[in-house]
Amino acid sequence: MFTKIKDVLAGKYPDGSEIRIGGWVAKTRSSGKIVFSIVRDSSGEIQVTTKKGNVCDDALKAADALTLECSVVVTGKVRTDPRAPGGREIVATGLELIGASPDYPIFGEGHNPEVLLDLRHLHIRSKELVAVMKVKDAVLRACRQWFHDNNFYEVTPPIIMSSSCEGGSTLFELKYFDEKAYLSQSAQLYLESLIFGLENVYSITPSFRAEKSRTTRHLAEYWHIEGEMAWTDLDEMISLLEQLVSHVCNKAAEQCPEEIKSLGGDPDYFRSLKPPFPRITYDEAVKILQEDGFEFKPGDDFGTHEERQISMHYDKPLFVTGYPLEVKAFYMKDAGNGRVKNVDMIAPKGFGEIIGGSERETDLALLEERLRKQGEDPAKYAWYLDLRRYGSVPHSGFGMGAERLVRWICNLEHIRDTIPYPRTISRFNP
Amino acid sequence: MFTKIKDVLAGKYPDGSEIRIGGWVAKTRSSGKIVFSIVRDSSGEIQVTTKKGNVCDDALKAADALTLECSVVVTGKVRTDPRAPGGREIVATGLELIGASPDYPIFGEGHNPEVLLDLRHLHIRSKELVAVMKVKDAVLRACRQWFHDNNFYEVTPPIIMSSSCEGGSTLFELKYFDEKAYLSQSAQLYLESLIFGLENVYSITPSFRAEKSRTTRHLAEYWHIEGEMAWTDLDEMISLLEQLVSHVCNKAAEQCPEEIKSLGGDPDYFRSLKPPFPRITYDEAVKILQEDGFEFKPGDDFGTHEERQISMHYDKPLFVTGYPLEVKAFYMKDAGNGRVKNVDMIAPKGFGEIIGGSERETDLALLEERLRKQGEDPAKYAWYLDLRRYGSVPHSGFGMGAERLVRWICNLEHIRDTIPYPRTISRFNP
Repeated sequence: MFTKIKDVLAGKYPDGSEIRIGGWVAKTRSSGKIVFSIVRDSSGEIQVTTKKGNVCDDALKAADALTLECSVVVTGKVRTDPRAPGGREIVATGLELIGASPDYPIFGEGHNPEVLLDLRHLHIRSKELVAVMKVKDAVLRACRQWFHDNNFYEVTPPIIMSSSCEGGSTLFELKYFDEKAYLSQSAQLYLESLIFGLENVYSITPSFRAEKSRTTRHLAEYWHIEGEMAWTDLDEMISLLEQLVSHVCNKAAEQCPEEIKSLGGDPDYFRSLKPPFPRITYDEAVKILQEDGFEFKPGDDFGTHEERQISMHYDKPLFVTGYPLEVKAFYMKDAGNGRVKNVDMIAPKGFGEIIGGSERETDLALLEERLRKQGEDPAKYAWYLDLRRYGSVPHSGFGMGAERLVRWICNLEHIRDTIPYPRTISRFNP
Repeated sequence: MFTKIKDVLAGKYPDGSEIRIGGWVAKTRSSGKIVFSIVRDSSGEIQVTTKKGNVCDDALKAADALTLECSVVVTGKVRTDPRAPGGREIVATGLELIGASPDYPIFGEGHNPEVLLDLRHLHIRSKELVAVMKVKDAVLRACRQWFHDNNFYEVTPPIIMSSSCEGGSTLFELKYFDEKAYLSQSAQLYLESLIFGLENVYSITPSFRAEKSRTTRHLAEYWHIEGEMAWTDLDEMISLLEQLVSHVCNKAAEQCPEEIKSLGGDPDYFRSLKPPFPRITYDEAVKILQEDGFEFKPGDDFGTHEERQISMHYDKPLFVTGYPLEVKAFYMKDAGNGRVKNVDMIAPKGFGEIIGGSERETDLALLEERLRKQGEDPAKYAWYLDLRRYGSVPHSGFGMGAERLVRWICNLEHIRDTIPYPRTISRFNP
C-alpha cells in the first residue's frame, strides 16, 4: 500500500515518480513557508520537503504543525538531492496528519536509563532498539534454518514444571491451580525424552531464572535456544556448534550489516567467521588465568571475570572443555579423573559464555549417585531416569542464550537492550 | 553416521548394499536360529532379519534377547522382499545392543489415557505422537516462512507481566522476587507497541490460561501465534489470514502427507486449500443457528457448541465478523451500531475457533470509556494508552492457537496430543 522508504533511498523510483509513504516524524523544522521533516518507517528515514505552492493550504498547515513522533501519510515526488540525508528526498504534494503526538516525552540525548526503561513502550521505536530487533529476527531465523537443514525437529517443551533442572535458588514459583509449580529454567530434560522419537530436536523458548544479581549479562526472562542429539558425542557436538554459530553470525551480518554497524558492531568480522574455533581444556584455561596473575582456585567454576580474562586471548569464540565434575550438573557425563564431558563456548572480547553443553551421563547408577551427592532425591527424577532404563543411547545437548548471542553480534554494553521488555530483579513493568 | 531407514525403504541403496543403522526395537520375535525385528529410527521402521550363520554367536544371542524399545546398532545388507513391511529388509551381519529395555511399560493397545499421560516421557516416542510432532514442526516453519515473506519481523515479547490482557479469572499468578506478577495470556498489547518501529511484527510464544474446564480444545499452556500490522484494516487482515492459513496447511500437507494420513487426516484437503474462505457476519451466523433450531440468545458470544454447529455448514474455514461490542474486549475497534470490527476464524467439521483478531480501537477516549465500563481502571493501562497518544496509526492484529491448528490438520480428537507435555487443570507432571 505504501512505498517503503528504503526502496526510495535505494533508487528504485526515478526522480519525479509519484509515491505515497506512511510513517512517523523523527525531526521537523519549519520556516512557515517551507517545512523540512525527517519521516521514518520500518525500513528507513527520508527527508520530506513541504513547500507553499506545492501543497494545499491545509497540508502546509499540517506540515507546519508536525511534532516529534506524530504519524503522517505523505504523497509526493522523488527528487535526488545530494544535500538530503541519504541523497534523496520527497517533495510533498500532499500531507495528512494521522495521529498527533503532543509533547513526546523522549527527545534529545542523555536520558536517565531508568526513565527510558519506564518509557520502554515508546523507546522501543528508537533507531537503536529497532536495529537490535532486526538483528535478533535475523539471528532466530538463521538458527532455525540451520537446525532444519541439519535434520533437527522443532519441539515445544513445557514451561510450567513440577520440579527443577538447574537447582532451586533461582526458581520462580507459581500458583498452579491449588498446587506449587515452577517456571522452566531449561527444556533439557524434556528434550532428552524427545530424542527417542525424533533423534535431533531443538526448541527456542523463554527460560526463567530469578537472578538476584544485577549484571550486564543476565535477564530474569530470556530466550533459550536448546538442542539435543541422539547418537552424538561431545566432539561431534562441538563440531556442530561451531557450524551453527558461524552460520548464524554469517547470516545476521549479511542481512543486517547497516544495523550492526550503526550499533558499533563489526559486520565484516561476523560475515567472515568460520570454523574451526579454538578448543582448550579447563586445565589450559586455568593456566592462562595463572599466567595472567589472576586470583583463581583450580577446581572452581569460572565466573564472569574469569571468562572475560580468558576470552581476551582469543579473536574467535573459544570452546573450553572438561570442567571439574564437582561443580557441574548431575547429568553431564563423567569423563573419569574428576572431569565431565562438557563444553562452554565463550565469546571473544569479554562477551563471555554464550553456550553451555555436554554429553549426557547414560549410566543410571552414576546418575542416582550424583543426584544424592548434590542432596537431591533421585525419586524426584524418576521419569527422567526412565530414559536411561528403556533403550538409552549416547547423546549430547546444549543451551545457547539468544540475547547473549545478539549482544555479542551487536556489540551492546547491556543485555537488556537485546529484548523488547527486559525483566530483571528490579523491573517487570511495562 | 547412520543410514536413515527412510532412505533404505525409498530404495536409495541397491540390494546388497552394506549399511549401518541405529534405532529402537518396535517388535521382535525369535525362533532361536532366526530373529525378525522391527527397528525404528526418527525416519521410519524396517524389518531386520538376524540369522545364525550370518552373524557371530554373540550377535545372534543379542538379537535373540532383544526386547521392546531397547536401542541397537545393526550392520547388514539391504534386501528387497515383498513380504517385509515396506518391501525391503536388512539382513543383519552384525547387531549390538546399546541400551537395554527390560519390561517396557507400554505395550499392546487399550491403555488408560491417564496411565499414558503418567508415562508421557515414554509414550512420546510412539508412532502417533512422533507423527503429530513432525506435523507441528512443519506448521511452525511454514508460519514463520509466511511471516518473513510478508515483511513481518519476529519479536520476543515478555511472558512475565504486571497486569493482564484478557481478564483476571484465568490468570496464573507468580511470585516475582517480592512482588506479584502474572503469566502472559497474549502478547497483543506488547506487539501493538512494536509496530511503531517495525510495522509488521509477529511472535510465537507460550501463553497461559488457568482454564478450569476440562475440554478437548483447551490447554493451560499453549503456543500462541500472534501478529500485529500497522496501517492495516480488518478487511486487509482477513485477506492476509486466509493466505497465511492456506500457506501453512499446504506446506504441512506437502511435507507430512504420510504422517497426516496415519493419524486419520486428509492431506489432499489441506494440500489444496486456497483462499478465499467464506465470510459471514455475526448476524448471519445467528440466523444459521436459529434455522438449525439451536437455542441461542442473540447478543451473546459464541461458545464451543455454537461454533461447532455453524462450522458444520462449511467445508472451508469460515470468517465470522462483527460481534456485539458488549461481549468483546475493550481494544476491538467500535464499528458503530453496537458491533466491533473483529473476526474469528472457525475451522470446519467442528474443530472450532482457531483465530481471533480485530482492528484495534485508536480513539483514546473510547478506549478509556470501554475500560471503565468493564470495571477496569484506565490508569493501569497507562503505557498502552500512550500508544494512542503518540503517533497512533490504524492497525489490526490476531492470535492463532498453534495446537488448535495442528489438531485440525491432524484430525485429532483431543488437543493434548498436539503438545509433548500437556498442562491442564489436573496435570503438570511429568
